Amino acid sequence: MKKIAVYTSGGDAPGMNACIRAVVRGAIYHGLQVYGIRRGYNGMISGDIFEMTSTSVSNIVQRGGTILKSARSKEFMTPEGRKKAYENLMKLGIDGLVAIGGNGTFTGAEVFYNEYQIPTVGCPGTIDNDLYGTDYTIGFDSAVNTSLEAIDKIRDTADSHDRVFFIEVMGRDSGYIAVQSGIGGGAEIVMVPETHTPLKKVVSSLKDGLRRSKSSSIVVVVAEGDEEGHATEIAEKIKSQVGDKLDIRVTTLGHVQRGGAPTAYDRILASRMGLAAVEGLMSGQKNVMAGVVNNEIVYTPFIDTIKKTKPIHDDLLRMVHILSI
Amino acid sequence: MKKIAVYTSGGDAPGMNACIRAVVRGAIYHGLQVYGIRRGYNGMISGDIFEMTSTSVSNIVQRGGTILKSARSKEFMTPEGRKKAYENLMKLGIDGLVAIGGNGTFTGAEVFYNEYQIPTVGCPGTIDNDLYGTDYTIGFDSAVNTSLEAIDKIRDTADSHDRVFFIEVMGRDSGYIAVQSGIGGGAEIVMVPETHTPLKKVVSSLKDGLRRSKSSSIVVVVAEGDEEGHATEIAEKIKSQVGDKLDIRVTTLGHVQRGGAPTAYDRILASRMGLAAVEGLMSGQKNVMAGVVNNEIVYTPFIDTIKKTKPIHDDLLRMVHILSI
Amino acid sequence: MKKIAVYTSGGDAPGMNACIRAVVRGAIYHGLQVYGIRRGYNGMISGDIFEMTSTSVSNIVQRGGTILKSARSKEFMTPEGRKKAYENLMKLGIDGLVAIGGNGTFTGAEVFYNEYQIPTVGCPGTIDNDLYGTDYTIGFDSAVNTSLEAIDKIRDTADSHDRVFFIEVMGRDSGYIAVQSGIGGGAEIVMVPETHTPLKKVVSSLKDGLRRSKSSSIVVVVAEGDEEGHATEIAEKIKSQVGDKLDIRVTTLGHVQRGGAPTAYDRILASRMGLAAVEGLMSGQKNVMAGVVNNEIVYTPFIDTIKKTKPIHDDLLRMVHILSI
Amino acid sequence: MKKIAVYTSGGDAPGMNACIRAVVRGAIYHGLQVYGIRRGYNGMISGDIFEMTSTSVSNIVQRGGTILKSARSKEFMTPEGRKKAYENLMKLGIDGLVAIGGNGTFTGAEVFYNEYQIPTVGCPGTIDNDLYGTDYTIGFDSAVNTSLEAIDKIRDTADSHDRVFFIEVMGRDSGYIAVQSGIGGGAEIVMVPETHTPLKKVVSSLKDGLRRSKSSSIVVVVAEGDEEGHATEIAEKIKSQVGDKLDIRVTTLGHVQRGGAPTAYDRILASRMGLAAVEGLMSGQKNVMAGVVNNEIVYTPFIDTIKKTKPIHDDLLRMVHILSI
Repeated sequence: MKKIAVYTSGGDAPGMNACIRAVVRGAIYHGLQVYGIRRGYNGMISGDIFEMTSTSVSNIVQRGGTILKSARSKEFMTPEGRKKAYENLMKLGIDGLVAIGGNGTFTGAEVFYNEYQIPTVGCPGTIDNDLYGTDYTIGFDSAVNTSLEAIDKIRDTADSHDRVFFIEVMGRDSGYIAVQSGIGGGAEIVMVPETHTPLKKVVSSLKDGLRRSKSSSIVVVVAEGDEEGHATEIAEKIKSQVGDKLDIRVTTLGHVQRGGAPTAYDRILASRMGLAAVEGLMSGQKNVMAGVVNNEIVYTPFIDTIKKTKPIHDDLLRMVHILSI
Repeated sequence: MKKIAVYTSGGDAPGMNACIRAVVRGAIYHGLQVYGIRRGYNGMISGDIFEMTSTSVSNIVQRGGTILKSARSKEFMTPEGRKKAYENLMKLGIDGLVAIGGNGTFTGAEVFYNEYQIPTVGCPGTIDNDLYGTDYTIGFDSAVNTSLEAIDKIRDTADSHDRVFFIEVMGRDSGYIAVQSGIGGGAEIVMVPETHTPLKKVVSSLKDGLRRSKSSSIVVVVAEGDEEGHATEIAEKIKSQVGDKLDIRVTTLGHVQRGGAPTAYDRILASRMGLAAVEGLMSGQKNVMAGVVNNEIVYTPFIDTIKKTKPIHDDLLRMVHILSI
Repeated sequence: MKKIAVYTSGGDAPGMNACIRAVVRGAIYHGLQVYGIRRGYNGMISGDIFEMTSTSVSNIVQRGGTILKSARSKEFMTPEGRKKAYENLMKLGIDGLVAIGGNGTFTGAEVFYNEYQIPTVGCPGTIDNDLYGTDYTIGFDSAVNTSLEAIDKIRDTADSHDRVFFIEVMGRDSGYIAVQSGIGGGAEIVMVPETHTPLKKVVSSLKDGLRRSKSSSIVVVVAEGDEEGHATEIAEKIKSQVGDKLDIRVTTLGHVQRGGAPTAYDRILASRMGLAAVEGLMSGQKNVMAGVVNNEIVYTPFIDTIKKTKPIHDDLLRMVHILSI
Repeated sequence: MKKIAVYTSGGDAPGMNACIRAVVRGAIYHGLQVYGIRRGYNGMISGDIFEMTSTSVSNIVQRGGTILKSARSKEFMTPEGRKKAYENLMKLGIDGLVAIGGNGTFTGAEVFYNEYQIPTVGCPGTIDNDLYGTDYTIGFDSAVNTSLEAIDKIRDTADSHDRVFFIEVMGRDSGYIAVQSGIGGGAEIVMVPETHTPLKKVVSSLKDGLRRSKSSSIVVVVAEGDEEGHATEIAEKIKSQVGDKLDIRVTTLGHVQRGGAPTAYDRILASRMGLAAVEGLMSGQKNVMAGVVNNEIVYTPFIDTIKKTKPIHDDLLRMVHILSI
């Protein structure tokens, strides 16, 4: 291994820059040359690839987003696209890749590896924490804290007006952000895709809350992928059942959850993983993701990270219930 | 003047608690007794009124929301409601009122004063900054900073993906939050109710931005009361005109803007105004709002704060344009 | 088990309130009565003990500090003090205790249990993360993030002036905060009590940094318990060796690290531990601390948490070195 | 006027980058060429001057510090130094200067103008707010909010332990930061250079506070330039007078106050001033500072900004007293 390249792909996540920095400095520390590829697979295809030095990554550990930019690439889904990408990498003599991203990123990397055998190690960069093979993904802790700050703020106004708030957080297939920000924010109810929360039960919980204490506000955190629909739809259905007795409002947090300075946890996790990707490549790892399980670095085949699902802890959902009495 | 009462009404705003604290401690400092009324005019009607001491307001200066809670009252719009309110105040011997809120609050106070002549001084508590008679309202600076933090975060992800973001901030009749958070956040375009920004112009600005630099993200801040509609509607219209050339996303910040710890500016402004309300009452002011104009306390008749409008500075809108080149 | 009491003792930590809340609501959920003791062992001795309900802990999950207040108690170190404490608990029929705190707290609990056999489960509440028996302590993640935000800010000004900053963070016997905030903040050097960093090496690192890039700032994070002394002393010694070539400044972060709203991580950790303490007591645990190891609840005898030490990960220190090249 | 140059000098302040951005884009908007000078007068002397474009200042409005770097220059105090600076500017044909900084910066600009007559307009960039000719300086609002957040955090731990905290904030000659963060943070006492607060009075206030409520914490905010000395010295003197009755701690906030993302207020103020500097130069202003007084742009001769002092409002100090009862 002499020359490696690093790219970010798919939805961006806070901590991606810390990860890029660790890849670059880790590679240089170990005597490798290191290149950056802009806009993920698109840049691989168009040849937007440049050498990086230690100072290329100065003063970025604290920045949200990704200095390498990110994109989803349709062209890379075609054999022609991947051929161009391969040729660009060969021209520069790149013999190892670090892919920072989520499910889609690793699916691309898996296909590419099977065709061209350039050793690739992935780093799990996605706010959703929905990847098998790591306890936490890069960006998850930051997204949860951003959601939590928003929930804290909304609680202020909910309390002042005795209102019920439905707050939608990100998580198309996964309720991790919802559950963690819900527990952290003292939510009375959390609705996630992994389990079915019938609206009937939500209505009766709301009425219960109302009965116990006329004055209290109620916060319901909804993952965007909940099977009952988006928070706006759920709120409409609930309103039609409870009428004017409750003053119901909805907030969809949206893309703020993707941005901002990463938390300490994400910066350290991203740094560890970036370094583990480089050192993994050097010791012969390929076609795997570097994750952290029980505080140890673990390499998991891409195919498993894509196919296997990581269940949400039952005791977290149980905690929401107990703590909201 | 021996006994005064304070209440918050209408939409809550960060800094209301700092204002309540200043009213309570200012009153006690000057030898008055002071009462709190819960839930605005509703509590006045239902008699939810209690004596407050110096320690009632300990450790609240930094809290969002209002410890007195707030509400909009339909009953207070009826003569019967106001009669009940008056009787409750008389029972306790209250001979002065401090009303913290916005337009609706002062409209109620004006009517009530004309019927029952209890001297009332208002403090402008609303995030919208849409009140004549004061340069800034309590909560405005906090709301702008909250919006700005969100815009900064969204800019991270917009930059990483070269996206166009339409961000809707609060302001039904006023573009103050939009303009200030837009300038602060480096927005390329700001759309406010006070001026007409034709969609054609937005489209050509977006195309211009695209032409100048293929890689840059663009942020458009939209006040919720813009005459072209909500950010979601505007974005839909724009999409139908520009097609796939731009990757357009929308975020509506929503109620987070109302919550959170108030900024230093709001805490100090709120403290000054609360104290000015008490000292105004003691020196014979009535039926007026205490505002700060050019850094001096000014008392403006309620009727003027309700009827007169405060125009947005032209040079702020000009600045958006110049700074986004 | 019918009646339990909870107290906080020793230095306060963000998340203690979330822990108290989980103890109170967890106890009520399981049908127990629950009491709060103010000011730790002092309140136990003076009888400052009161029943808590579900609403006693409303709206505190996000607050720093501890609503039960905390103190260090000299009287509890005497047999007479402990006797009084025991009698007060007996009067109320309390048959279980939850102690939230660190080393000193558990030492007291251990002695007390040996004398009077009231089952006690501890929750590790200390920002230092220096307790054996748990991967993380309540408050640690918040303190690291607070330190990190300060380091980020200081980096702004260090960069603008090409300065070297020595930043002292908390940690009398432990370098956990220093290492994590150092890695997160991109520190060039981290000095901790666990390993010896000779000043000679610091000087040569600084000179190296200077040589490689004249313009860059350098940040050195120092744990307060470093064997070379406090940051101010270290900086003085370094200055006397390098003279005017480097513009050296010192900041001691101090007590800000103890306060502020807890992070999501700390709120969830504290909630889990509080619940685990209650359920531990109910299932017969005693004289142990509830910790989280590899994401599972583990009960460790107080004596082990006091006597055994938790080493700092070598690979974290190695990471500081690699990432600062 | 065809070519202007901009530089930052003296202590850095949040918002300087927003000001640089406004100077650069304002100049380009008006058809001027614009240069940046690195490290203030040092770069002017060494010729570290480069042309700036609209994209040179992309994505910096939210960043602390200054991308142009800052320094204090001894050489500029000599006629030889200034001669070199003049020659460098002449080589590039620069016929206007924008100086961002404080007292020292403007003193240099004044001397330079008198010798070489290059029109110069200053922008007040200093966290201390101690410049005559403007209500607020760039960076002041951010520094106050940073101090306030620290005070809020310290209040958490002070309350938990019933402690007295002396918190030192910046302000060598000016108590503006101390007074505003003190009022905002609910400080019981504020000590500033502008007025003499005898220690006797501090001691009696502390004892009063103790008498009124045994459990409350007390916060004393001290400006670093207070005539009684630094917070550590003051605390030592107080301790020697009150003995063990009070648990007194000290925190010196230090350089964190200079860093961090600027607040909305500072970004807008900095943008207005930067633009006003450019437009001032174009309309013939020279040897003046662009300030904002009563919300209007005002140009004040450098000599006045240096020689005249801006008194602190008496009613702010009065407010500290009333609000802490």
